[in-house]
Amino acid sequence: MITENHRFIFEEHIPEYKLAGRANHPEDTLVEAGGVKIGAGCPIAVMAGPCAVESAESIERIAEQVKAAGAGILRGGSYKPRTSPYSFQGLREEGLAYLKNAGRANGMPVISELVSEKDMDLFTDNVDLIQIGARNMQNFALLKAVGRIGKPVLLKRGTGATIDEWIMAAEYILAEGNPNVILCERGIRTFEYATRNTMDLAVVPIIKEKTHLPIVIDPSHATGNWKYVEPVALAAVAAGADGLLIEVHDDPDAAASDGMQSIKPERFAELMDKARLVAKAVGREI
Amino acid sequence: MITENHRFIFEEHIPEYKLAGRANHPEDTLVEAGGVKIGAGCPIAVMAGPCAVESAESIERIAEQVKAAGAGILRGGSYKPRTSPYSFQGLREEGLAYLKNAGRANGMPVISELVSEKDMDLFTDNVDLIQIGARNMQNFALLKAVGRIGKPVLLKRGTGATIDEWIMAAEYILAEGNPNVILCERGIRTFEYATRNTMDLAVVPIIKEKTHLPIVIDPSHATGNWKYVEPVALAAVAAGADGLLIEVHDDPDAAASDGMQSIKPERFAELMDKARLVAKAVGREI
Amino acid sequence: MITENHRFIFEEHIPEYKLAGRANHPEDTLVEAGGVKIGAGCPIAVMAGPCAVESAESIERIAEQVKAAGAGILRGGSYKPRTSPYSFQGLREEGLAYLKNAGRANGMPVISELVSEKDMDLFTDNVDLIQIGARNMQNFALLKAVGRIGKPVLLKRGTGATIDEWIMAAEYILAEGNPNVILCERGIRTFEYATRNTMDLAVVPIIKEKTHLPIVIDPSHATGNWKYVEPVALAAVAAGADGLLIEVHDDPDAAASDGMQSIKPERFAELMDKARLVAKAVGREI
Amino acid sequence: MITENHRFIFEEHIPEYKLAGRANHPEDTLVEAGGVKIGAGCPIAVMAGPCAVESAESIERIAEQVKAAGAGILRGGSYKPRTSPYSFQGLREEGLAYLKNAGRANGMPVISELVSEKDMDLFTDNVDLIQIGARNMQNFALLKAVGRIGKPVLLKRGTGATIDEWIMAAEYILAEGNPNVILCERGIRTFEYATRNTMDLAVVPIIKEKTHLPIVIDPSHATGNWKYVEPVALAAVAAGADGLLIEVHDDPDAAASDGMQSIKPERFAELMDKARLVAKAVGREI
Repeated sequence: MITENHRFIFEEHIPEYKLAGRANHPEDTLVEAGGVKIGAGCPIAVMAGPCAVESAESIERIAEQVKAAGAGILRGGSYKPRTSPYSFQGLREEGLAYLKNAGRANGMPVISELVSEKDMDLFTDNVDLIQIGARNMQNFALLKAVGRIGKPVLLKRGTGATIDEWIMAAEYILAEGNPNVILCERGIRTFEYATRNTMDLAVVPIIKEKTHLPIVIDPSHATGNWKYVEPVALAAVAAGADGLLIEVHDDPDAAASDGMQSIKPERFAELMDKARLVAKAVGREI
Repeated sequence: MITENHRFIFEEHIPEYKLAGRANHPEDTLVEAGGVKIGAGCPIAVMAGPCAVESAESIERIAEQVKAAGAGILRGGSYKPRTSPYSFQGLREEGLAYLKNAGRANGMPVISELVSEKDMDLFTDNVDLIQIGARNMQNFALLKAVGRIGKPVLLKRGTGATIDEWIMAAEYILAEGNPNVILCERGIRTFEYATRNTMDLAVVPIIKEKTHLPIVIDPSHATGNWKYVEPVALAAVAAGADGLLIEVHDDPDAAASDGMQSIKPERFAELMDKARLVAKAVGREI
Repeated sequence: MITENHRFIFEEHIPEYKLAGRANHPEDTLVEAGGVKIGAGCPIAVMAGPCAVESAESIERIAEQVKAAGAGILRGGSYKPRTSPYSFQGLREEGLAYLKNAGRANGMPVISELVSEKDMDLFTDNVDLIQIGARNMQNFALLKAVGRIGKPVLLKRGTGATIDEWIMAAEYILAEGNPNVILCERGIRTFEYATRNTMDLAVVPIIKEKTHLPIVIDPSHATGNWKYVEPVALAAVAAGADGLLIEVHDDPDAAASDGMQSIKPERFAELMDKARLVAKAVGREI
Repeated sequence: MITENHRFIFEEHIPEYKLAGRANHPEDTLVEAGGVKIGAGCPIAVMAGPCAVESAESIERIAEQVKAAGAGILRGGSYKPRTSPYSFQGLREEGLAYLKNAGRANGMPVISELVSEKDMDLFTDNVDLIQIGARNMQNFALLKAVGRIGKPVLLKRGTGATIDEWIMAAEYILAEGNPNVILCERGIRTFEYATRNTMDLAVVPIIKEKTHLPIVIDPSHATGNWKYVEPVALAAVAAGADGLLIEVHDDPDAAASDGMQSIKPERFAELMDKARLVAKAVGREI
């Protein structure tokens, strides 16, 4: 009989994920990035900072603020993949140096997005956690390249990618020998236009069930609107996420990129206070 | 300039919702159903029970169990809209009576889905909260009909409906004179097939921002899989939902409908214990 | 192995459609509406007219124009399901009379949308082909009601409905005893916003393969933009559609509803000339 | 007022595409690949061949067959981006040589997909038209790289990409100095699972309206099912497409990749005969 549940018939046919799957690797993987451990049982890792590194001063100022509020890892894009070639593309090499310095000055490991294999050395030298962005989730040449190094990788889900494809993209990295993969959901593309993307929080239990990898949630890109970041971040913690990736800027209106979805440092501090309470309610720490 | 945020340009053009909108009605609406108040500031209302009423005995047994675990309202479908005309269509009039009795015996108001204007009298006599299902969200004849009565109405979002359309559907009910409308998200249809639908939890802050109506989350239909119901329910509470609608069955494998997404009573009790902690963390009760 | 084609695994599990399916009914069904035959082997049926009947004069004027260009059936909505309760809702009973008169005066059967069972008598008296709109595709009470009468029914696909659900909705009508069902695609809802909906033309061969029912394409709602109506209409003819449903208005800017997607009569005449050539190229007539 | 057409409000805010847009470049661009001209006014270019080059013999055999049926360009993937790292990844350098030889032997230019900047020299030496696949549509490093060479580029739309993003991806190539860009639609990802993707044929008039670039349609990936390839191909021709990209294999069941959507040479010949008639009906040749 046809039923509304017939989608689930798929399940039987979905293959094991040789390396990412639970079947061959029952224990949870913990990934360490610059001294911060991320994964099941660890405190929830909060990665915060501006969408893009804009200057040495601004990244240092924001780093101090997010550190003070309790963030463990500093984020900041320096090679920005933008829809238009005429949008701000990032400070590149210079920005990475600013990011690293701001991180060091505050005792925080740093995460930044890699968009081309050519920049790999620069990233292995300057960055603690390499982000592969949604647009490159199936850039298999890039996935294989980060699979051949030892640095931990945070792999964002493509906005048009199924969970199966996302796990298989992680499999590309793992298959090259790099076991340090973190998955990060940032919302998928749907017909709804009240938000930039639609956050699919069911991925948290699904990734936990199917894989042994840590799962991080990015409420900033998922909603695209600073007003919705806090409730979605709290929801992610309640659902069991191992980390949060949040855009924070002290002058969002003047941000070079994604200002609308960035929250101010004082709001971030409030979010952290609330997130600690929710984390405690579900038996975790931040 | 084109930006990834250009979707938000819409916002300027979106009209006020005359009756549902915050602009003309700043205070939160509390809806009372059979003595249970639902809305901002009230304890989170938990509506639980089987997808379909199957017999007098089973609905009574499940009612006792969900009541014991802390549910405030008993759910049970008796007129089932099914994709196939050959699927079980519900016990109809008989089922409504069983539901009402089970509710009365346990001191619980009851909610059930109305699918045709013809059955209105039966519903006003037997049911405390009338559910309009996702498939009928834009059945405007039915919306107007429930707008002309005084009973509270829980309006589910269509799986293919935008938030704007959903609020406008509520506006149809309000415009006929019935102010007692509760909105209920049950997931939207996307390309992802690991879940039955994709839960869009950003609706919680969006509905709170744009309207004054209570918002309830249904994690059972959103995920379609009992394993994912608890984390998504906890996420909904953390996001600020005013209520939960959860399918509970003591023998899911034998359920007449939607067994795969129904949780057992003992699991429901655990979910309630956890939900209480999360609710407390965000300043609410259950 | 997981493959990109694993979606098709579903196929094995999809049930026969008892009455709509080819398995039990290999020959194509031809539906006759007011003397016009619609289905495989017949000339392509073109249904044209305004979105809404606005006055006796305007519907008569447009009827003459579309008749002159070769349309076989006159369309015009008189009970309009609108997203907002404050939008124009149609001329109702009065409009149906105008439509019938305009059709009679030009020797054209008429099609109009039924939104409530209450109006059934009015429709059986005045309309040759009853349209069930996208929003009511799973209003099963309404489907059963039109299943109990003999009039032909054109069932639009819901913008969020799968092909399986659409065929099953037809099954509801067939199961009540009415064999005269025509399916009509009007686009589905996707993330793309350059068009109102996304036209899914693969439905033409799919419906032909799985069912014996006629399939009609509505390029007006699918695109939402008069500029794209002609190329999509020609594409539908080339794909094998049995009919077209097209919105035509002689003053689109002043139209009460959907002016942006309505084409002018002179443009409709050009479209018909081109469609005749394409029809001939694929072995059909118009 | 809110209306169902409010999506179109966007239009006003969409920026000019500096180089891809019609505004600054009113005349249609014709792209020449190995002697075959593609674009408005030219005969419809048909690119056909297997999904993947499998051996020297098979690509030669298929090349002869598609040439005999009227194809102008030979396709064959040699670097295959696959969802799983364990799927067949292509014959790589060896395959490109086989493809080139098969093309030369039959007087056909060849098209193949480039997945990494590293292979650029190999592609400029062996391939007449470089394909950028859907997964790499926003791999901006790769887009810039093909923008710096003179070879024509066929840019596929990402399955989760909006038309705006797709045109902006073309803008990346144009902005680097390569004016020879062809756009190719291969279907987008939606909730419908009866086909692999949903073909969005409205892109043909939209691309013609907004840009001056040629538009090619790939009915094989769009449908994912050989049974639906012909009607969708004919529809594309009727809609005004400048080319078709079709997978042909003489033993689909044994194909290394995508066998289900490949048509046999004899069926391809029939498709070509029908496509010629439809092309003629809309004033084009093949």
